[in-house]
Amino acid sequence: MDYDFGMVGLGVMGRNLLLNIADHGFSVVGLDLDPAKASALEIEAEAGKNVKGTTSIEEFVGALQKPRAVMLLVPAGKAVDAAIANLLPYLDEGDIVIDGGNSYFPDTDRRVVELEKHKIHFFGMGVSGGEKGARFGPSMMPGGDRQAYERLRPVFEAIAAKVDGEPCVAYLGNGSAGNYVKMVHNGIEYGIMQLLAETYDLLKRGLGHSDEDAQRMFEEWNGSEVQSFLVEITGQILKKKDDVTGQPLVSLISDRARQKGTGKWTSQNAMDLQVPLPTVDIAVTMRDMSAYKEERVQAAQALEIPSTQGANIDDWYAVENRLRNAFYFAMLVTYAQGLVQLRVASATYNYDLELEEVAKIWRGGCIIRAACLEDIRRAFAANPGLANLLLDPAIGGELLKRHEDMRTIVKTAIDKGIPVPGFMTSLAYFDAYRSATLPTNLIQAQRDYFGAHTYERIDQPGVFHTQWD
Amino acid sequence: MDYDFGMVGLGVMGRNLLLNIADHGFSVVGLDLDPAKASALEIEAEAGKNVKGTTSIEEFVGALQKPRAVMLLVPAGKAVDAAIANLLPYLDEGDIVIDGGNSYFPDTDRRVVELEKHKIHFFGMGVSGGEKGARFGPSMMPGGDRQAYERLRPVFEAIAAKVDGEPCVAYLGNGSAGNYVKMVHNGIEYGIMQLLAETYDLLKRGLGHSDEDAQRMFEEWNGSEVQSFLVEITGQILKKKDDVTGQPLVSLISDRARQKGTGKWTSQNAMDLQVPLPTVDIAVTMRDMSAYKEERVQAAQALEIPSTQGANIDDWYAVENRLRNAFYFAMLVTYAQGLVQLRVASATYNYDLELEEVAKIWRGGCIIRAACLEDIRRAFAANPGLANLLLDPAIGGELLKRHEDMRTIVKTAIDKGIPVPGFMTSLAYFDAYRSATLPTNLIQAQRDYFGAHTYERIDQPGVFHTQWD
Repeated sequence: MDYDFGMVGLGVMGRNLLLNIADHGFSVVGLDLDPAKASALEIEAEAGKNVKGTTSIEEFVGALQKPRAVMLLVPAGKAVDAAIANLLPYLDEGDIVIDGGNSYFPDTDRRVVELEKHKIHFFGMGVSGGEKGARFGPSMMPGGDRQAYERLRPVFEAIAAKVDGEPCVAYLGNGSAGNYVKMVHNGIEYGIMQLLAETYDLLKRGLGHSDEDAQRMFEEWNGSEVQSFLVEITGQILKKKDDVTGQPLVSLISDRARQKGTGKWTSQNAMDLQVPLPTVDIAVTMRDMSAYKEERVQAAQALEIPSTQGANIDDWYAVENRLRNAFYFAMLVTYAQGLVQLRVASATYNYDLELEEVAKIWRGGCIIRAACLEDIRRAFAANPGLANLLLDPAIGGELLKRHEDMRTIVKTAIDKGIPVPGFMTSLAYFDAYRSATLPTNLIQAQRDYFGAHTYERIDQPGVFHTQWD
Repeated sequence: MDYDFGMVGLGVMGRNLLLNIADHGFSVVGLDLDPAKASALEIEAEAGKNVKGTTSIEEFVGALQKPRAVMLLVPAGKAVDAAIANLLPYLDEGDIVIDGGNSYFPDTDRRVVELEKHKIHFFGMGVSGGEKGARFGPSMMPGGDRQAYERLRPVFEAIAAKVDGEPCVAYLGNGSAGNYVKMVHNGIEYGIMQLLAETYDLLKRGLGHSDEDAQRMFEEWNGSEVQSFLVEITGQILKKKDDVTGQPLVSLISDRARQKGTGKWTSQNAMDLQVPLPTVDIAVTMRDMSAYKEERVQAAQALEIPSTQGANIDDWYAVENRLRNAFYFAMLVTYAQGLVQLRVASATYNYDLELEEVAKIWRGGCIIRAACLEDIRRAFAANPGLANLLLDPAIGGELLKRHEDMRTIVKTAIDKGIPVPGFMTSLAYFDAYRSATLPTNLIQAQRDYFGAHTYERIDQPGVFHTQWD
């Protein structure tokens, strides 16, 4: 029979996404060279769904109706190129290939060009939501070949997460726009995870509260303005006890944090675009710092300081309230940084992004879904050319209401010796952005002093050089 | 006649370096396609020195004694490749080509291989010190072809800056080691310049002191433990008055800071190596932020906050003392970050660097020369395998003596709404590094929750996955 949709790569993401598609009435076929994964697909499929797993590329390609729709969910990098190379001899003109992985966006641009030569429609589509999202409703970020996307739109809109009845998928823009938006999504994800880790650290190690207090706090937060998937799962994580010891499971987990590179790419590309992205940068940095475990253990002794300094915030209500305000402040600033990056990238790479659309599809299904994304969507709906979320009156107002608590929290962490660089850089971003004049004039003078790099003046046009000494 | 040394590119750096070489008794010839630059070389040469400028590549190559020694001082990137391509037909086996610019280190590795095919010895050598350093004594960072370097060592040792009679040049290591060390030098330079800008901003805009106060302070600092080239020129810059208005010239300079990319490369490469480099990262970021001038002016109104919050530090002695301690603290932490990057890069790229040697040649001539580099040199002399300067008892002791002033200064800036992200990230680096346990265990739990990325435990080996909800 002619299957509607094919998936290459039946790891947990590919398998779950394919089962999700089958649930919506489409017939699907999955290919994986690992027989266990191919058969797991059929075993997990619900009765009455049209789901086939295979390890044979010929069978896979032959089973699909033409023009074929084939999605790849394999690790980013060489595996994607290998999958394309293996498929290519079996594909026909007009077939569609979708890369659903976290591919590095220049790779997508290259592959579009390569497959165009074979008259194959190729587009990149970021998929977020983890295994559960893939199974029951992810957020999807397609870009590139619009015509090809339109043909598959009914499939993706059917399986996407829904917010107010609207699917969390939309065509975003040209070229590698889909992978790019997903990359920045992941960068923001790194930032918010770092902010939550700092919140937990300050509460527990800095202020001496228990895991139970922290658990209760995050659970309560999820009913407030900071409501979000990452806050929700933090509450759930802290609830989980180790089966054997009965201790909070999180306290038994190694603090060496891993990463797969999308956060790093986001930061490195922001630097190429000269977009300030300090909260994401420091999140990447702190994962790197976490790997220096033996040195940190050594330094903890060598650089020990008296454990209690400064004033405690003794009242639980005040602690919880100030922390929540500070977290919300930093969270909004993190979204603001990422959305500036998307604005600049759109102009640089001709993506033609609409940021309202991006905010809209991030509201559900994805890892960074949060109640505030509706406010963010509204800001771009009111002003599609908004340069920075901080300039939106409503968002700016939320920040102004909370900046004093933000300052108090950072000062408390400083007194307690707890590193909160995510909070710090978010606050510094806010204070720098609202500085009509920064002291970078001194830097220009220094550069001119030692390197004759010249400078501009505020009172007259032109380029100047001074003999300073 | 047979000239000893040739220079391609007679901009201010190339010209000055060549005049410096001539001053030390070598005969030199310079090539520039711009006749004005070629003749400027001869005009600026002192009487009795053997200096020739030309616009003819044939004349240039023909004038040099064989095997030739040709140095390139042209802008990094395509100009270097073009200069090599133009020279190559005229060179002979055994000739030496030295790239003295800020080339991106992988380009150097590529060029070494390309020129080896022609039996030309190519090596990269970072040169620091600005125009004045080039003229009267730079710090030079050669790496790569050791044999070729040894042949030219007498030239470079003659012209280098001297500290305690020792020249600020030494063979550093294999491959692109020279360019790499210079890149990290420049990253540290970005960091320290940002710290000085923040110091100035907090003093003037935050605490209401005058440019004259700031000038006096930096001048005094240069007689203290923070003695350094960048502190010295900051004092001199603040002294300079505009000819027309009589105002401090710096206050008339535009605050849009430029950059040529070496700071960005340092940060991007640190992320590739997973080395935390937050103070350099934020320095790059703040230069980027400086370009958003119109938005900042708009945000200054939209996000205005009451101008005086928190306590003032009223006593000048306390202000000056605490600021100096905080600056010294942050400066040491910035060097520490860069030296970790060199350690990891050396292992990754097989440079075989000796960090004592690096600290030694940075003590004089270069832009980041500072009194503390002798302490840093001593730390690596005592322990060549030192993982991080923060673990050196003497350096660690200096930080412990000053961390409370550091905390006070950052808290003061927070109260005043002055962005000091360089200070903040330096303090956070210190506090994170001395954290035996970081809250990154929560990040690992989150990654396992939504992406089944698995985690490790502290109480048993293996890799685990949990069904968290």
